[in-house]
Amino acid sequence: MKKLFGEFLGTLSLVAIVVGSGIMAAQLTQDVGVALLINTMSTVFGLVVLIQIIGPISGAHFNPVVTMVELIQQKVGFALFIQYVVAQVLGAICGAVLANAMFDKPLIEMSTKLRSGGNLYLGEIVATAGLILIINLLVHQEKLVLIPAMVAAWIGSAYFFTSSTSFANPAVTIGRSFSDSFAGISPECVPRFIAAQILGALIGLGLTKVFTSDK
Amino acid sequence: MKKLFGEFLGTLSLVAIVVGSGIMAAQLTQDVGVALLINTMSTVFGLVVLIQIIGPISGAHFNPVVTMVELIQQKVGFALFIQYVVAQVLGAICGAVLANAMFDKPLIEMSTKLRSGGNLYLGEIVATAGLILIINLLVHQEKLVLIPAMVAAWIGSAYFFTSSTSFANPAVTIGRSFSDSFAGISPECVPRFIAAQILGALIGLGLTKVFTSDK
Amino acid sequence: MKKLFGEFLGTLSLVAIVVGSGIMAAQLTQDVGVALLINTMSTVFGLVVLIQIIGPISGAHFNPVVTMVELIQQKVGFALFIQYVVAQVLGAICGAVLANAMFDKPLIEMSTKLRSGGNLYLGEIVATAGLILIINLLVHQEKLVLIPAMVAAWIGSAYFFTSSTSFANPAVTIGRSFSDSFAGISPECVPRFIAAQILGALIGLGLTKVFTSDK
Amino acid sequence: MKKLFGEFLGTLSLVAIVVGSGIMAAQLTQDVGVALLINTMSTVFGLVVLIQIIGPISGAHFNPVVTMVELIQQKVGFALFIQYVVAQVLGAICGAVLANAMFDKPLIEMSTKLRSGGNLYLGEIVATAGLILIINLLVHQEKLVLIPAMVAAWIGSAYFFTSSTSFANPAVTIGRSFSDSFAGISPECVPRFIAAQILGALIGLGLTKVFTSDK
Repeated sequence: MKKLFGEFLGTLSLVAIVVGSGIMAAQLTQDVGVALLINTMSTVFGLVVLIQIIGPISGAHFNPVVTMVELIQQKVGFALFIQYVVAQVLGAICGAVLANAMFDKPLIEMSTKLRSGGNLYLGEIVATAGLILIINLLVHQEKLVLIPAMVAAWIGSAYFFTSSTSFANPAVTIGRSFSDSFAGISPECVPRFIAAQILGALIGLGLTKVFTSDK
Repeated sequence: MKKLFGEFLGTLSLVAIVVGSGIMAAQLTQDVGVALLINTMSTVFGLVVLIQIIGPISGAHFNPVVTMVELIQQKVGFALFIQYVVAQVLGAICGAVLANAMFDKPLIEMSTKLRSGGNLYLGEIVATAGLILIINLLVHQEKLVLIPAMVAAWIGSAYFFTSSTSFANPAVTIGRSFSDSFAGISPECVPRFIAAQILGALIGLGLTKVFTSDK
Repeated sequence: MKKLFGEFLGTLSLVAIVVGSGIMAAQLTQDVGVALLINTMSTVFGLVVLIQIIGPISGAHFNPVVTMVELIQQKVGFALFIQYVVAQVLGAICGAVLANAMFDKPLIEMSTKLRSGGNLYLGEIVATAGLILIINLLVHQEKLVLIPAMVAAWIGSAYFFTSSTSFANPAVTIGRSFSDSFAGISPECVPRFIAAQILGALIGLGLTKVFTSDK
Repeated sequence: MKKLFGEFLGTLSLVAIVVGSGIMAAQLTQDVGVALLINTMSTVFGLVVLIQIIGPISGAHFNPVVTMVELIQQKVGFALFIQYVVAQVLGAICGAVLANAMFDKPLIEMSTKLRSGGNLYLGEIVATAGLILIINLLVHQEKLVLIPAMVAAWIGSAYFFTSSTSFANPAVTIGRSFSDSFAGISPECVPRFIAAQILGALIGLGLTKVFTSDK
């Protein structure tokens, strides 16, 4: 139960950070570059803390495709996989609601921000493949202690260099659809983002195998 | 005495950083997003240093609710708690005076910046609960060495994602009322901010217990 | 083969980051200072991750002059040097193509951005000499573990303080000529940049010898 | 000799970074807040690298008041003190010349930027006192390994929160007078800045004694 609560609270916090700092940024500046800097720095700082403190409790996945990869690697069983995903998605939605509440917006306000196009899906594939490759190479190299900082740094980099601003997480993608703000995504665009993220995760797993195979 | 001087000087420095960088930012730019970036980066860089160097001297609380949590946990006695809080509040006020002096403003100039509303108090609750949870989980996980960086990162993230820009500290809140500038808060708004911070700290303590209970 | 694939994928990722974040930045803001902040933060965050995870696989050179210095120091043979450089240059070009694809631009679009002048070449010499000095001093001091963060920090600093915005890498320079965007460089300007980088690398190697000689 | 060359090259690089990124920033943006962000990030990233790699060679002072404090503490003799200061000041001037050269300005162009006023001197006192206190407490606590990051973080914070933007270094102050640009200071203003820095250093030393005395 502590594991599931860790995943719930961590994903909740992550989405509150992403959505909340997006609302804050859009309120403070007209310069979308400055807004994305604020959104990114808040996410990087928050993510490193959340992974660090919840890592020892639940593994700090906060991300269904990370748990999916562990399922494929038989590190978690199917029942726990389902529980993790439920906790992550519920947490993500509650995180958006919390951000909406903190900024005095309707608690649930579905996003109207359209995000679609093959080039954005490519961005999601790249961001998610990188994420999975980083986690798995660090595990393979027995440098678990670096995972919080390296994952946060990767997401920080990918916010800027991928065309999709790097959602890279199905639960966060769902959560972000519950706020009609800077970081939002219209619900109708969510399924294709998730499909791209799953594909990216599988590519990341494949790349890991290339680098860690015995030959 | 060294402990009290450490709390005094640390809180003084922290408020001088928060208030001073706020004045600097407002003088340099019209873009409030850029101003908050400057205010946040100065606070993050300064906070990590202050906690690092004063931690071995006094524990580097700089924050009455952190000391309050230690009182509840019976890590400090009531007499020391009172002494710490007095040192922190005096330090915070002197820090605002120092910032005012550095920027050639009246040494004491009560802020006229109104900050109120349930959504802001919610921001303070979230920021303070997170702060207490982070410190206590890192202590529980015996990763004291990470506290300076993780606390600074959390405050950096929360400056952007909470609606209140994350005061999260009653002494700093009082200190910030002594400068009529970017980081200021009108004295009449201080009590409710402090109440929210105390509530947040108790929630943070409760969350810690959930994660660290034996069951 | 894993080594070469590591160099290929790492340099690909690095150029995708540099070029992609440049395109993103130019789309989001009119303020070129903000654009360079975005470009730099994305590069710093990405570079530390790439060197960290691919370091144990190939050494994470991603840069022909780094490999050239290892050739001079007889740490790699001539055959491997050639293979590394080919992998790096191919990776760099593919990275620009990937960035173009993510932002829905023509896959190959040669840059029209002129970058020339003795003062820019001096910038490249300074940036590259510093890079080689840093890597070699850290190796000499047996602090290999610091190389990812220190190289990323140096490049981050040099993006801002050198007039050329610090390419400091022949493969990345070639790659950046394949995108007509913020981070681009016209192909006709590439040879002199590379010449300056080679000269800078030799100066960096000379400085290393001054500091590490027995006398 | 290696020590003196280390101090020379390190101070040269530091001033080239400070002055060069100031010129770059002023060329790229009209927003002085953004310019100071660029100037600060370049300095923080550069300073951590320089202290890290040159620390084992010369101690990486790059700053006459840091050497002065070691003289007072009898860690260096008077002859070496003089040699260090000469190397630092020569390095600082050459660093400004290098920055001017990189940006195609006259190699020596004395600054016309007036910086004076009691409040700025107070800023210098605060910044320098903090710098000396940080270095000495970390030495006392036997955490030498943290000095590069903590000094860089302090300077990064103080760039924003002190009214003087934290020169905190007599050699760098002299060097900055040799470029008529964003980071410059008119020669006639230099002596009072240096006097404030010396006073700040003595206060920092006094604070260190308060915290490290046996009683």
